[in-house]
Amino acid sequence: MTHHYKFWGWGLADEVVPEKEGAEFTGWIAQLIKHQGGLDAPTPAPTVDEIQLRAPRLDVPSDLTAICSTTAEDRLIHHYGKSYFDAARCFERQFDNPPDVVARPRNEQELIQVMAWAERVGAALIPYGAGSSVVAGIEGRNCEGFNGVITLNTQALDQVLEIDPVSRAARVQAGILGPALESALQPHGLTLRHFPQSFQYSTLGGWIACRAAGHYATRLTHIDDVTQAVRMVTPRGVAETRRLPSSGSGPAPDRLWLGSEGTLGIITEAWMRLQGRPDFRDGATVYFDDYFKGAQAVRAILQAGYAPANCRLISAQEAQSQRAANGSKHLLVLGFESSHGPVDRDLAAALEIAASFGGSTTAGAEAGGDSNSWRRAFLRLPYYREVLTSYGFMLDTFASAITWERFEAFHHAVKADTEKAILEVTGQPGLVTTRFSHAYVDGPAPYFTFFAKGTPGQLSRQWREIRHAALDSVIRHGGPATHHQAIGRDHRPFYDKERPEATAQILRAAKSALDPSGMLNPGVLIDAQKPH
Amino acid sequence: MTHHYKFWGWGLADEVVPEKEGAEFTGWIAQLIKHQGGLDAPTPAPTVDEIQLRAPRLDVPSDLTAICSTTAEDRLIHHYGKSYFDAARCFERQFDNPPDVVARPRNEQELIQVMAWAERVGAALIPYGAGSSVVAGIEGRNCEGFNGVITLNTQALDQVLEIDPVSRAARVQAGILGPALESALQPHGLTLRHFPQSFQYSTLGGWIACRAAGHYATRLTHIDDVTQAVRMVTPRGVAETRRLPSSGSGPAPDRLWLGSEGTLGIITEAWMRLQGRPDFRDGATVYFDDYFKGAQAVRAILQAGYAPANCRLISAQEAQSQRAANGSKHLLVLGFESSHGPVDRDLAAALEIAASFGGSTTAGAEAGGDSNSWRRAFLRLPYYREVLTSYGFMLDTFASAITWERFEAFHHAVKADTEKAILEVTGQPGLVTTRFSHAYVDGPAPYFTFFAKGTPGQLSRQWREIRHAALDSVIRHGGPATHHQAIGRDHRPFYDKERPEATAQILRAAKSALDPSGMLNPGVLIDAQKPH
Repeated sequence: MTHHYKFWGWGLADEVVPEKEGAEFTGWIAQLIKHQGGLDAPTPAPTVDEIQLRAPRLDVPSDLTAICSTTAEDRLIHHYGKSYFDAARCFERQFDNPPDVVARPRNEQELIQVMAWAERVGAALIPYGAGSSVVAGIEGRNCEGFNGVITLNTQALDQVLEIDPVSRAARVQAGILGPALESALQPHGLTLRHFPQSFQYSTLGGWIACRAAGHYATRLTHIDDVTQAVRMVTPRGVAETRRLPSSGSGPAPDRLWLGSEGTLGIITEAWMRLQGRPDFRDGATVYFDDYFKGAQAVRAILQAGYAPANCRLISAQEAQSQRAANGSKHLLVLGFESSHGPVDRDLAAALEIAASFGGSTTAGAEAGGDSNSWRRAFLRLPYYREVLTSYGFMLDTFASAITWERFEAFHHAVKADTEKAILEVTGQPGLVTTRFSHAYVDGPAPYFTFFAKGTPGQLSRQWREIRHAALDSVIRHGGPATHHQAIGRDHRPFYDKERPEATAQILRAAKSALDPSGMLNPGVLIDAQKPH
Repeated sequence: MTHHYKFWGWGLADEVVPEKEGAEFTGWIAQLIKHQGGLDAPTPAPTVDEIQLRAPRLDVPSDLTAICSTTAEDRLIHHYGKSYFDAARCFERQFDNPPDVVARPRNEQELIQVMAWAERVGAALIPYGAGSSVVAGIEGRNCEGFNGVITLNTQALDQVLEIDPVSRAARVQAGILGPALESALQPHGLTLRHFPQSFQYSTLGGWIACRAAGHYATRLTHIDDVTQAVRMVTPRGVAETRRLPSSGSGPAPDRLWLGSEGTLGIITEAWMRLQGRPDFRDGATVYFDDYFKGAQAVRAILQAGYAPANCRLISAQEAQSQRAANGSKHLLVLGFESSHGPVDRDLAAALEIAASFGGSTTAGAEAGGDSNSWRRAFLRLPYYREVLTSYGFMLDTFASAITWERFEAFHHAVKADTEKAILEVTGQPGLVTTRFSHAYVDGPAPYFTFFAKGTPGQLSRQWREIRHAALDSVIRHGGPATHHQAIGRDHRPFYDKERPEATAQILRAAKSALDPSGMLNPGVLIDAQKPH
């Protein structure tokens, strides 16, 4: 039931960090960044009752009332995504762009009806999976020229419609949440094996629309790699690609829909490629004194042809910040998985390569850190973040990618620029830590985390200034606007610098063809067009 | 030197099959398809002198004369690609749509000048690598509304500009031929490892524009998989994607250029992902009595997680037709390769799986057939095909793909429909053989070859009728218009049925934005637009 979602933070309304645990964690971060002085009293989380929302500007037609809601709680739940920026604005009681209506179609026909209604009344239509966007991808900003905003929640489209055990694929409705999908596949011995950090509260359709990446480090990283066919409803008709293992017919049709972030249509179904469940696993933690030696080891392992499922190079500071290790060593968490046979030979070979770059599985073991302690911290982090926000601290992450030959310079520059911005914006030093979220034969996906102490009431502005400095650095040093967090509205300035102008022209032209009134998720990827 | 190319067949002008060998091979095919009666006298190949070409309709501007040619031989070399249809039309002396001018820019600036000239004078501009298209991708058909046709040969852009050994990538000009590219990489211990059948006479730019597939069966099959960044000249500017190991920034920009077949712009450079040269190899031939048991073995091997470089399931008739085996058994040619360690364990595991489906490495060995004999036949085939054409025989191939659960029905239907068409069109039975060109976890890429005896002087029409029946069957039974032979002009009717209408709208819109006069390769992928 969607009304159980927390509107100002991650997860369900009753999933909150106990006060004592929250204060203790905040104290830990304060200590890490050497924050002088004690903690401010935490700002209480907002409640539905205290917020004055703009009155809905749209009248729901009688044939859609059964699937439309205009309650304050629903409109608040669908107001923001789950970024630090979103949390900060919630604690600042900024709720300026609520959707006027939340629609929850139960089938494709109802979805088409909602879309037709939106177009008829000149409303913007914002597709919504489970709202885990961290880039303002589902927010009603940039809708000024429209007569209202309808958020289309796809979660009622939550069925696995067909399973094909021979080709190992399933036809799945787009609104299904991660756990429900895996539960449906489990009895068949199959898995999509796509586990983004948002897994619990994000949908298949969102993953496809935003080119999500799972937590496995190599090979099938992005959802793109496991998508066999896509079905999408556009204002100009339903589009569907063929179920094929591969094709060479013109530009791959679904590659333009993957990553379209709701600007061209709403994904309703997809055929997804599945795998057997891995029964063979083995892993180890390797300790390095030098982060860049660790990076060289990762490069050598991948270029030798190994594809570890887990290949997370975690900086000493990052492991320490998550209390997964004592901070004296950098960690490379290596893990191999297979559904067909032992992986010991692969692991041994990878460890041998790591050793040749100074990595050791024993020297440094007192530093602590392993896959499990790291994973627990990883899943707890979204909850800790909202606590930090309440205390006026910042915790944010951004995903990038770079080829190996530029990695060291890129890493230094982005880290330094982010640290500088934190100092300038907050007046005191912060902490910038890093890990590899994914690794490729030709380069890693460095993932940055920063901690800072901000000023309650100013956090959203301070975040924006720091984040913009960080992303600007990523772009200037050759990286992408994102590796797997999507573009939304917040990454637009950086995306606009990254993507070729020809691509912008193509996207604008494609949108004009499929969504002539420009109503679908205005402002995401390309500039909003006003309705005719 | 391009003037050495054969204009009516494959390869260089002096690469012809000796008369006796040609007659002998043709006799073999006649015997295979049980052709009654002896061979007709072969039609001689056309010569430049006997052909009356339309006079060039364009005047080359003085600043471009150094790179433009209007000689009859050049215009003939650039008239057709290398399909059976092309060869048949050459032997029928049909040369109705020659380019008026062949331009060979030596750098991007000259390429831009040629493009500007074409637009200025209302000419169509057809990008040309080495002309290996088998789908009329480089032919001056569908250019009726234009004031002339300029073929832009990219072969002077043939340099490897940079090699990055750290990230294993190279920046390469698009007009380089396969062998020159590999030669330049070889001293660095690196390889692109992309070996399409056309390797010797095709270019990197052509591979990218047409989404070519190499001869390795699994994992990195299409050029898409090894393309890191692309640079493309469009009539509205130069576009370039960032060099990144991966990205999640909106729809992947180069995925719309890959497969655009020259309709949006001309690819001038690309950063390509390289690999270490494989030093470890092992392989075996497995014999099956039942082709579909062989297919099940391939499926099981791939779904168990193995990725053989070679995984070619060849029907008994196909192996026999190529004189690589005696036709009593179906063959599965399996080969593993690695740059980092022995592959014996993988091979043993794959053979064990194959055995569980009735495959044997010994029972049937008298049938003959192995990777080497097959490979020799594979490379010789384009030359044999032109000989067959001269004798009034047909030899053609088409590439497809299908998910496993539909494979057997698909295979039967496409084979039967093609055989039926051959009988109806030629009045006598032909032969339809098959192999897997590639194999994926979720399905194979069945590759069909057909042989038939046609009527000299009618071959191009007869081919079209048979081919259209075959492709129509592929499409009706769920396959793509092609797996790796591109769309060009000949696959258009089938592509139009395969691709979603939304994709056509996107392509038309994209083309209008980047190529408003519609001059780039008119008629390929989408309908030609007349110049303003």
